[in-house]
Amino acid sequence: MQEKETGRVEAFSDGVFAVAITLLVLNIKVPGLLPDDKGLWAVLAREWSMYVAYITSFATIGIMWLNHHRILVHIRRTDTILILLNLLLLSIIVLIPVPTDLLAEYLVRPDMHVAAIIYSSMFFVMSCCFNFLWRYASHENRLLAKNVSPQAVAAINQQYLCGPLFYTVTFVVAWFNAPISILLNFILALFFAIPGPSLASFSGRMKREETVV
Amino acid sequence: MQEKETGRVEAFSDGVFAVAITLLVLNIKVPGLLPDDKGLWAVLAREWSMYVAYITSFATIGIMWLNHHRILVHIRRTDTILILLNLLLLSIIVLIPVPTDLLAEYLVRPDMHVAAIIYSSMFFVMSCCFNFLWRYASHENRLLAKNVSPQAVAAINQQYLCGPLFYTVTFVVAWFNAPISILLNFILALFFAIPGPSLASFSGRMKREETVV
Amino acid sequence: MQEKETGRVEAFSDGVFAVAITLLVLNIKVPGLLPDDKGLWAVLAREWSMYVAYITSFATIGIMWLNHHRILVHIRRTDTILILLNLLLLSIIVLIPVPTDLLAEYLVRPDMHVAAIIYSSMFFVMSCCFNFLWRYASHENRLLAKNVSPQAVAAINQQYLCGPLFYTVTFVVAWFNAPISILLNFILALFFAIPGPSLASFSGRMKREETVV
Amino acid sequence: MQEKETGRVEAFSDGVFAVAITLLVLNIKVPGLLPDDKGLWAVLAREWSMYVAYITSFATIGIMWLNHHRILVHIRRTDTILILLNLLLLSIIVLIPVPTDLLAEYLVRPDMHVAAIIYSSMFFVMSCCFNFLWRYASHENRLLAKNVSPQAVAAINQQYLCGPLFYTVTFVVAWFNAPISILLNFILALFFAIPGPSLASFSGRMKREETVV
Repeated sequence: MQEKETGRVEAFSDGVFAVAITLLVLNIKVPGLLPDDKGLWAVLAREWSMYVAYITSFATIGIMWLNHHRILVHIRRTDTILILLNLLLLSIIVLIPVPTDLLAEYLVRPDMHVAAIIYSSMFFVMSCCFNFLWRYASHENRLLAKNVSPQAVAAINQQYLCGPLFYTVTFVVAWFNAPISILLNFILALFFAIPGPSLASFSGRMKREETVV
Repeated sequence: MQEKETGRVEAFSDGVFAVAITLLVLNIKVPGLLPDDKGLWAVLAREWSMYVAYITSFATIGIMWLNHHRILVHIRRTDTILILLNLLLLSIIVLIPVPTDLLAEYLVRPDMHVAAIIYSSMFFVMSCCFNFLWRYASHENRLLAKNVSPQAVAAINQQYLCGPLFYTVTFVVAWFNAPISILLNFILALFFAIPGPSLASFSGRMKREETVV
Repeated sequence: MQEKETGRVEAFSDGVFAVAITLLVLNIKVPGLLPDDKGLWAVLAREWSMYVAYITSFATIGIMWLNHHRILVHIRRTDTILILLNLLLLSIIVLIPVPTDLLAEYLVRPDMHVAAIIYSSMFFVMSCCFNFLWRYASHENRLLAKNVSPQAVAAINQQYLCGPLFYTVTFVVAWFNAPISILLNFILALFFAIPGPSLASFSGRMKREETVV
Repeated sequence: MQEKETGRVEAFSDGVFAVAITLLVLNIKVPGLLPDDKGLWAVLAREWSMYVAYITSFATIGIMWLNHHRILVHIRRTDTILILLNLLLLSIIVLIPVPTDLLAEYLVRPDMHVAAIIYSSMFFVMSCCFNFLWRYASHENRLLAKNVSPQAVAAINQQYLCGPLFYTVTFVVAWFNAPISILLNFILALFFAIPGPSLASFSGRMKREETVV
């Protein structure tokens, strides 16, 4: 019966992730009546900031879903606090289309650093929520499956701690250079696509090689 | 086969809750071309009523999903009346983005008490629907699992009866002070996050302590 | 493996029904800046046609989901034609918010019979699609579970044949009186909430009573 | 535990497909206040391009869901690369409402070939993503179930390779004749509804008959 509870938390979360990722497309507006004699190609090309914002946010939400999936593979039981922490995380995921829209609108205007700062700080909060969720569930194996290896838990711990740190960097960069901070956000999404344990074994190999040298 | 029916009722309800909670974000509009020389920060700060409405409604829908989940853990069988009562509840959940939008729009205008009254009365109707659903299913254990403890049923009964009572309070407060009624709605959502049985054991302990004194 | 296929058809259909029923709420627009000195109550009251359209369409989609659920309880296997017929049905379900919006907009204007005609004909097509889906699956027990009783199949057959007939009536009424045709559509939705077999036993009892008389 | 992972990938994909297919309806706008004395019928008839775009895109997304379903019946295990390829495919599916809207808007204007070109190239990219996903999973039976017949794999391989080829044709046709390219896209969707193995047995029979002749 406890496992069934996890099942419904996953179903609800999948639904919220799926709707949030699809609502991103509403930010891409089709140009209406063209006011001047420029062709449709030119008008669509001018909307490049919408596509940049769409790609970065889609990659981030998609890969956060992947991480949510990875976490919940290890979690077997649920309690009220876990569900509330999950709702907190989802409330940030659902909000992502808003700063995405802000970015699409303002990336071509003087106020673009404001949009980039809000965008990065949203991701910073999101990565904190991920840490809360995982730390609560994994603390002294509170809600995890019995057969989870301590190495896997430690590897996820390590990777997730990087989240707030790295998003602080993109936040600081956003004050000086908005486009570079967006590029960093996109690269960070790809970083979180790498599974924690393989990162750990990779960095372990790096250390061993250093030792050998 | 009966259990499978519950499964699909849950899947459909999860979908509706997930879409309704995500549609709340459509209420948060990104400012278009700025008419005057104020910066983007100032414009975004002026939209605080949208964020208040978003947070209260997200908390309410999310925690109502949690309660729906708790109820359906106990329910094993379904019949047509249960599905219709569930549809009635969902029809209110789906509507919540409308009074939320109304609140976001009018919380900064003279008509704000109208928006707060409609907002509170929507939650009043919602809590009544929850009572209908639970009372119908739990009456003489009609549709419950065989091993449900009478204490758990009584605890949920007691907590859910508070819903219409408490929302009547926020409804009355809304006529005099809209912001306080919204704050009360938010606190009420948190109250319903506490699981019924622990509330019961808490109030049981309170009573025992009173007896001791 | 065949049963698993039905599972995913149900999951996709549940998702489409859930999103379509939730999108109905987008038709209810919150009034913007009030141009004259009338209060918010008066403005909201003037929008009654939106609420009528919302209630009728919500009841129809919700109860069609219930019928879809009832049909798929009996269906065990799937093939390409069943999935295509299901897609055809879903393409009509997804469209329902459009005539609903049309109705909400035009129920207070001279062209209201056009809106009511389109609304009723959409439901007529929907009920035909339901018949196609069920007839294809149940013909010579093609895709049904082995233990389905012929009585249950016959009862559903009978009730579903009424669909196109009854919606033809609301279609004809729409040419003369739009409000009555909408009321009939709402009553028809409630009629389809009654499970087929109990209808059959009810009409069977009626016949027996007639025989007795 | 590996099979459970496939389950959640399917649930998330089902959600995204369901939301994307339902958002198509947002492209169909209900006419507002009529500026001249033409009736509502005339205004609705003028919107034929919206219905054409809706039907073609609904058929394409629906049948792509069917193909996704067919592929995942054979896939048993998942890894990070599969999930990322799946996200890539979903990012295109989610975008389809945009060129659909573009087509609905511009099919009645001089720039219609631009809309048709973008529409066809979107489907070309989508069919490439399907090939990536399937080739990655089926290469040396990497992630397939053990009992998948090599014939079934070869049949799907063959049919999917046709995708990019055929969509290149509709892309080229779009430069010369937009309506015919849209018709071809619709026919292509129907072609992908036919299950691969039956296509293979059909073309096999054709060849045998040729040999006999």
